[in-house]
Amino acid sequence: MYWRGSSSLWRGRPGRTNANDMELVQCVPNFSEGRDAATVAALEQAIRASPGVALVDRSADPDHHRCVLTYLGPPAAVARASLAVAQVAVERIDLTRHAGQHPRMGALDVLPFVPVGDTSIHTCITLARETGARLAAELHLPVYYYEEAASRPERRNLAWIRSPGFEGLRSRPLTDERAPDCGPAAVHPTAGAVAVGARGPLLAYNVYLRTEEVEIARAIARRLRERDGGLVGVKALGLWLASRGQAQVSVNITRPAQVPLSRVFEFVRLEAARYGVTIAGSELIGAARLEELLEVARSSLGLHDLQASQVLDLWAARLAAGEHTGG
Amino acid sequence: MYWRGSSSLWRGRPGRTNANDMELVQCVPNFSEGRDAATVAALEQAIRASPGVALVDRSADPDHHRCVLTYLGPPAAVARASLAVAQVAVERIDLTRHAGQHPRMGALDVLPFVPVGDTSIHTCITLARETGARLAAELHLPVYYYEEAASRPERRNLAWIRSPGFEGLRSRPLTDERAPDCGPAAVHPTAGAVAVGARGPLLAYNVYLRTEEVEIARAIARRLRERDGGLVGVKALGLWLASRGQAQVSVNITRPAQVPLSRVFEFVRLEAARYGVTIAGSELIGAARLEELLEVARSSLGLHDLQASQVLDLWAARLAAGEHTGG
Repeated sequence: MYWRGSSSLWRGRPGRTNANDMELVQCVPNFSEGRDAATVAALEQAIRASPGVALVDRSADPDHHRCVLTYLGPPAAVARASLAVAQVAVERIDLTRHAGQHPRMGALDVLPFVPVGDTSIHTCITLARETGARLAAELHLPVYYYEEAASRPERRNLAWIRSPGFEGLRSRPLTDERAPDCGPAAVHPTAGAVAVGARGPLLAYNVYLRTEEVEIARAIARRLRERDGGLVGVKALGLWLASRGQAQVSVNITRPAQVPLSRVFEFVRLEAARYGVTIAGSELIGAARLEELLEVARSSLGLHDLQASQVLDLWAARLAAGEHTGG
Repeated sequence: MYWRGSSSLWRGRPGRTNANDMELVQCVPNFSEGRDAATVAALEQAIRASPGVALVDRSADPDHHRCVLTYLGPPAAVARASLAVAQVAVERIDLTRHAGQHPRMGALDVLPFVPVGDTSIHTCITLARETGARLAAELHLPVYYYEEAASRPERRNLAWIRSPGFEGLRSRPLTDERAPDCGPAAVHPTAGAVAVGARGPLLAYNVYLRTEEVEIARAIARRLRERDGGLVGVKALGLWLASRGQAQVSVNITRPAQVPLSRVFEFVRLEAARYGVTIAGSELIGAARLEELLEVARSSLGLHDLQASQVLDLWAARLAAGEHTGG
């Protein structure tokens, strides 16, 4: 039996678990292809073949006709991988033959860079601007910088940039408020335009409801999202997932340090209960920080003092990296 | 907005996150000292000064008059650290002047070795036997091998080995059923005897109840533990934590892969509710596997598909270790 008394002589976890002093950046490009297995495989392969980056996650959806890759590495390696995968997207995806529910303007639609660990957002801003300039020069894409990399206030908002869609942007010269930050003043004929940005961590989190009434998911999404008076930094949509026969509340948590997953889950659970609807499950798309998952354990089990340093796997990775506490 | 449809073309996380192909062993020695800050610091320092091991956690409790260190490293480094810390314990802890609620028979009371990652239990059995032999030869301690390292079936059970306590073992020669596996046939005059073992992962988990009635904690512990018909592999005690003014259900989960933390928490919560008692919080002592914490998120939020490979921190550690997926 182990224990811990509140008047313990000492208690704590010495040292740090952060194995990486190296600068690391996460990249989460969104592509307008979720149906053609060969294209989706080619995109994945471009990342796998790119040295120095780790492919963490891949998600594709035929209903939305989109896919997402998640990878990370040092800035230079992430830039190289991003250019390689962008080239595959431009070569293989033809937006003139693409339709889907999701707003989109490019074959490579969005390219966000996200700091990992102690890496600065400024590293990601620089990376976004440099990579964007190369996408314009080498692949002839109009490039819009967004969020932290934006050149104008209204362009911080990805939704604003993307609102005309491929078809809207194609119908006019890209001038004035729609002038790209770099690249040609017209969309690429098949690959459209791309938004390249730098942003903080974001949790892409979906909750499935045991109902076929998508209106219930939409009502919950409205109450949940910041825009309509809900939780800070939360974006949400109610969607119908035909392939599952369930409604989904699809959520982006843009301030995960302030709004933990558990709070969003409980919010949805309580709102769904109004309608007698229960939750079938939830899912996290792409990567999450350990801290965000520990917060679930803290809040669900009242594990108030749980710390990342208690996670053995991190220490094992650190030892494998050749570090140790002795000396 | 990200998504995942059940009919996704593909979905999954490529590659492995386990950064270490190296053999790693976790060690969690228990010492019969929880009050003297200088001794407790000396024990800690012995581990910190030992090359090649990482000190993960330390807990001391004055009520129980015990402390626990958690460290890990390659087998040889863990053996060296364990011998060093055992020597400090033998030099500084005098059981003739020690009293506490917790059963104990040694200054270094228990020395368990636990496999980490893909390391085999056989590595830990060998390590236990070799380290035990050196504790006997160099520090003149009677050594009993327990659990997977046991030499006889009844000695698998640590409670059986330790049941006479220091005072009981001191009162007679250590022969027949009490003959040590190695070392002298009498307890060390001040440091007693030691149980050295190899075992699987164990979660040391405490739940605090908002009540001053320790009988409620005891009743819950009885219903919860395997011995009395509760959950498989669970040991539990109801304790009174004077320093907090709260009762505690102190739990060991010896089969964490089968019995997740959340199940134990829910069990205690429901049983406490019988008495109108709520849970003030819970705590995890020492280290846990990432998998055990992910299981909390899976069960609390219905995150059925959550995988370790989604945890960015592990990938960052892996990249820091010089691995990558590209090539």
